[in-house]
Amino acid sequence: METFFNPYISVDIVVFGFDDNEGLKVLLINRSRRDDPSLKRLKLPGNFINKKEKLHDSANRILKEFTGIKNIYLKQFAVFDDPGRLGDGDDLKWLRDRTGTEIERVVTIAYYSLVKLHQYSETELSKAYNARWFGMDEVPGLIFDHNQIIDEGLATLQKEFLTEPLCFELLPKKFTINQLQRISEAILGFSIDNRNFRKRINRLEYVVALNERQTGVSHKPARYYIFDREKFDILKREHTGFII
Amino acid sequence: METFFNPYISVDIVVFGFDDNEGLKVLLINRSRRDDPSLKRLKLPGNFINKKEKLHDSANRILKEFTGIKNIYLKQFAVFDDPGRLGDGDDLKWLRDRTGTEIERVVTIAYYSLVKLHQYSETELSKAYNARWFGMDEVPGLIFDHNQIIDEGLATLQKEFLTEPLCFELLPKKFTINQLQRISEAILGFSIDNRNFRKRINRLEYVVALNERQTGVSHKPARYYIFDREKFDILKREHTGFII
Repeated sequence: METFFNPYISVDIVVFGFDDNEGLKVLLINRSRRDDPSLKRLKLPGNFINKKEKLHDSANRILKEFTGIKNIYLKQFAVFDDPGRLGDGDDLKWLRDRTGTEIERVVTIAYYSLVKLHQYSETELSKAYNARWFGMDEVPGLIFDHNQIIDEGLATLQKEFLTEPLCFELLPKKFTINQLQRISEAILGFSIDNRNFRKRINRLEYVVALNERQTGVSHKPARYYIFDREKFDILKREHTGFII
Repeated sequence: METFFNPYISVDIVVFGFDDNEGLKVLLINRSRRDDPSLKRLKLPGNFINKKEKLHDSANRILKEFTGIKNIYLKQFAVFDDPGRLGDGDDLKWLRDRTGTEIERVVTIAYYSLVKLHQYSETELSKAYNARWFGMDEVPGLIFDHNQIIDEGLATLQKEFLTEPLCFELLPKKFTINQLQRISEAILGFSIDNRNFRKRINRLEYVVALNERQTGVSHKPARYYIFDREKFDILKREHTGFII
């Protein structure tokens, strides 16, 4: 008879928040809600799954429990399965203390989400949940492999951003090229030359200029654009979907 | 203190095999290698992970143990996590008997692979491993949710096939349009109109006609084509990658 080892399964959630002025941020919580300073190490919202719960339901439940955020689109993007990902230091001790179990290994299923930053009140997140947004370059050393989970989540987001019309979900229906550039820069993590960006966008048949400009702005009013999803889908099929 | 439920983790592998004449097949094994007819129910190659093993290493080890196949490209495509996926019938009883453990739940991580069918000898697979290839329409009812795993693996393969130049890895460097059509039909699971297919392919800038034809064939020798990966990458970036 073989011996079966039985690792634990958790889910962890990388919630990215975007705002025109503040760029891209990620939501982190303290590993304990209690006010013990030794427990102040930061982590992603995450926990073990329940016995009769699908992973997606676990992710939604856990996100709500730890941050109050609910009803957002969560996308499973990777399984973190390194047998040594818990390390053997203080983080593992904390986990064993908290669970009262001699946990040896946890496989975690990672989800990510992209939301509008200001849908969620900073004060409420912080007061009720001890959760807070961090700019991508402010993220400190987190427990376990959570920095790596964020890195891979961001890489997935960037990849989807470059091949799927993801950003248009975070923009108003009518947007300016400047807004599109700011979200692109925030997600990609570098600044893009203004004139090249404008040229590039003007060549895209599915970003359509309207005969309408901003009103009530102090600078020269910018033109509005909309995203034509139907055209995008047709072009995508034409040029890369190589059959049918 | 919360109670932590601890499901088991397994990997299951959907190996698709393609051949010009036989179309698309999938590799199945008996749930036991012993010759007890009551154990003859079919399943995907799969098993529990070991204590200190990454999932990808588990997938490679298990595939080799159960089929002898090694060193192939395995792609993780989904996690099957339905709490009721083991059912409560004969399959669960078999699993509990085999493991000597009152297993209640197994979360399985699914991988798929696409190989050339005739790289693997049918006789050896069958004699040494009790494994055999099944046409996609010959697959019987399998244990647990393994039919669903195959269905989702096939859907993933089809999706990748339509957006990535996957099929060229299964074709010789120089191929005919007919060969390209046969693999397309096999993977997509329906026949494609000859003339439309030819027109469609001739419009693709990255499938390049050579000034060279088949030799030693009894029918009218067909023209050879090659796949221009560089051109494909450029076009893909131009038309769907909307920035940079």
